[in-house]
Amino acid sequence: TLSDLFENELRDVYDAEKQILKALPKIIKAAKDTELREALTMHLEETRGHVERLEQDFASLELKPKGKHCAGMAGILEEGSDLLEEDGNDAVLDAAFIAGCQRVEHYEITAYGTLMAWAKLLGYEEALKLLEANEREEKAADMKLSKIAESAVNPEAAGSVGESDDHEEE
Amino acid sequence: TLSDLFENELRDVYDAEKQILKALPKIIKAAKDTELREALTMHLEETRGHVERLEQDFASLELKPKGKHCAGMAGILEEGSDLLEEDGNDAVLDAAFIAGCQRVEHYEITAYGTLMAWAKLLGYEEALKLLEANEREEKAADMKLSKIAESAVNPEAAGSVGESDDHEEE
Repeated sequence: TLSDLFENELRDVYDAEKQILKALPKIIKAAKDTELREALTMHLEETRGHVERLEQDFASLELKPKGKHCAGMAGILEEGSDLLEEDGNDAVLDAAFIAGCQRVEHYEITAYGTLMAWAKLLGYEEALKLLEANEREEKAADMKLSKIAESAVNPEAAGSVGESDDHEEE
Repeated sequence: TLSDLFENELRDVYDAEKQILKALPKIIKAAKDTELREALTMHLEETRGHVERLEQDFASLELKPKGKHCAGMAGILEEGSDLLEEDGNDAVLDAAFIAGCQRVEHYEITAYGTLMAWAKLLGYEEALKLLEANEREEKAADMKLSKIAESAVNPEAAGSVGESDDHEEE
């Protein structure tokens, strides 16, 4: 039934958020741009809040908070973890971190979008409000990352072409 | 450099699109809603076009089209493939397929967004146009899935609560 599916999806995103809680500190440590580090640090704090709100979601449905391995998030974070070991130009690596984090945000935005649509139909009003609050912060985090990329990190990364590149030009 | 990163990301999304080409026929076969099946069949055709456009992208940069294992897409599709083996109410399974496909679309929308931002900075004008065309179709496919979910599949899935459910009510 749709309520089983909702519960399943809630467990998926609960696990995804917990995976992010583990991964974000490593990315923050590796990132070089100050503004990017601050944005990710703020988002780490928000992510703790998301986990708490999801626990309230479970409680509102009289369910125990329990995760279910989220293979999607694991795959996205696996791509990012390869990157943590790479050496290279600071701005280029920051641009790659942003790309990875935006994949994370988008995964969550879709997952919350799905959960919200189902919560509405199922009449889960309290759960819906909590999900909306999480989705709002994910969207804001995604937009902030786009802004940092466009205003600072990407142009600096593009400027690195001449420094260490022997790649043929267009 | 940013051009290396661009190439890397292009190879990631090329592999992702090819993974989708393999997975979509199975989902189409399993889906029950006619409108959903038609939409996914159309998107399968579009996906073939995306692969071709990406090959033109590689060509415009004088690169050989070569994929690089996209762990993110693999994870998202792994979640979907578990679903293919599940038994249950048709509309509920369709709702779950839509949720999975929207995760796929969002992954691609973000990836194309990143590639487009970098292509602009790198002055890859021809590549940019091809990427924009792919992104447009991914966004349209995502919106179409939302529409099918909201207008038909989700309400029907919600109606299934009474049929076969012994889950406690709110």
